[in-house]
Amino acid sequence: MADTVTNAALPLVTLILGGARSGKSRYGEGLIEQRLGTLYRAATYIATADARDAEMSARIARHRARRGPAWHTVEEPTELAEALGLYTDPEKPVLVDCLTLWLSNMLLDDRDIERESTTLLDALRDAKGPALLIANEVGYGVVPDNALARRFRDAAGLLNQAVAEVADSVVLVTAGLPVVLKGERS
Amino acid sequence: MADTVTNAALPLVTLILGGARSGKSRYGEGLIEQRLGTLYRAATYIATADARDAEMSARIARHRARRGPAWHTVEEPTELAEALGLYTDPEKPVLVDCLTLWLSNMLLDDRDIERESTTLLDALRDAKGPALLIANEVGYGVVPDNALARRFRDAAGLLNQAVAEVADSVVLVTAGLPVVLKGERS
Amino acid sequence: MADTVTNAALPLVTLILGGARSGKSRYGEGLIEQRLGTLYRAATYIATADARDAEMSARIARHRARRGPAWHTVEEPTELAEALGLYTDPEKPVLVDCLTLWLSNMLLDDRDIERESTTLLDALRDAKGPALLIANEVGYGVVPDNALARRFRDAAGLLNQAVAEVADSVVLVTAGLPVVLKGERS
Repeated sequence: MADTVTNAALPLVTLILGGARSGKSRYGEGLIEQRLGTLYRAATYIATADARDAEMSARIARHRARRGPAWHTVEEPTELAEALGLYTDPEKPVLVDCLTLWLSNMLLDDRDIERESTTLLDALRDAKGPALLIANEVGYGVVPDNALARRFRDAAGLLNQAVAEVADSVVLVTAGLPVVLKGERS
Repeated sequence: MADTVTNAALPLVTLILGGARSGKSRYGEGLIEQRLGTLYRAATYIATADARDAEMSARIARHRARRGPAWHTVEEPTELAEALGLYTDPEKPVLVDCLTLWLSNMLLDDRDIERESTTLLDALRDAKGPALLIANEVGYGVVPDNALARRFRDAAGLLNQAVAEVADSVVLVTAGLPVVLKGERS
Repeated sequence: MADTVTNAALPLVTLILGGARSGKSRYGEGLIEQRLGTLYRAATYIATADARDAEMSARIARHRARRGPAWHTVEEPTELAEALGLYTDPEKPVLVDCLTLWLSNMLLDDRDIERESTTLLDALRDAKGPALLIANEVGYGVVPDNALARRFRDAAGLLNQAVAEVADSVVLVTAGLPVVLKGERS
């Protein structure tokens, strides 16, 4: 990341897709870190993970340790649209990590996915400053055995498509390396 | 899709790859829709899904509702080579949705996959007009537990490779957005 | 592959990523084959598969049959860093097939993955000639049910990221077709 210092402002909405452990979160953090101290004074990290899960709280702690003091962390497993309304700011980019966990929380919470997605997309269109959303690509395996996993996989794919349509920039990350799917390389 | 209006004819064989719910079918439909009324008068949709499956028939109904009246739908779960022979036409592109379901039907039907694939590849080489084939990328997860799923995954990957070799254009779709792997962007 | 004959030497470290049956091994072999007899006199194939597995030994046999007599095959399921030290040679490229099986062997062997990865990365930095490493992309499905599969998936993703950072060239192969993620197209 160090070799891609840039002075360009981040677009309003960036979607960063990737598989598990593809380096997508780190890539998103890098896009913001490169601009901290110059274009932006600070950043907000919105963690959608439910910290009650032991594996998850370990990951959150690792992520927190990796980020510097300019980052402010907010934990918001479900009310993501509201959090985007509160925290987007032209001087302070927001990183949402990740959209797919939020979706998973919504499914477990038995929410109306279509309505919640519409609310989220509206919040993205109304963002007051740069929002970067990390999301998992989960549809590249064989069809899962159980119906819930299939429903989750379908919902995640549809959500990624809908956010990609709203986004100014979409990037697919593999082994830490980006392929720009939409917009300019930032 | 609306921003990519084009006057270029479709190549003879196009392979459109993507994960589940990646927007690959919609992308393929878009390539044809953009040219309906100008380059082509109508289009044929070959559905390989077996409509006896309830989830599947719901998907077929959704797909059918999305497409306009210029589309003619054919259901052909197994005899795909024959259908390509019957329906390819220089004035009427054919969309096959999807190759991976066809393969799955062939495996369930205990067919000789190698021979059937050869027949299919010959039919593609002999196509009398544009054929677009949608296919799933299924090999990006951990190795499946059961041998049948592994066999299916292997066969699907091999079939995608073989069709990609015959194809004039190959596109990978992620969240509705294309990456051109072979040929010109159409 | 035949249409991309080239006279450029292979970079020191190339990582070739792809899903199962994506044509990644064949792509890597092609990069070497194109240069055999001109830039390189021979090549070494390091198979990390454990041939005790029946499916695996069938695949090794198929791979061996596909390669010509200029290839020397070494089976090394675990001591990969050592093998790279022994076999890398400016006149004889090495193809490692594959990194992900090596990782799987290390996990089954209960090795210290972090330490072994560091040793491997050092061996790649110290390579005496071109090394091409094939690796599986395994993180694009839904989260696996069991903890071991999750641990493997995480470790594979992290290893791919680490090797990609050391590599001069990184390529993602889908249906036999490359997308260059890092470095020049070779």
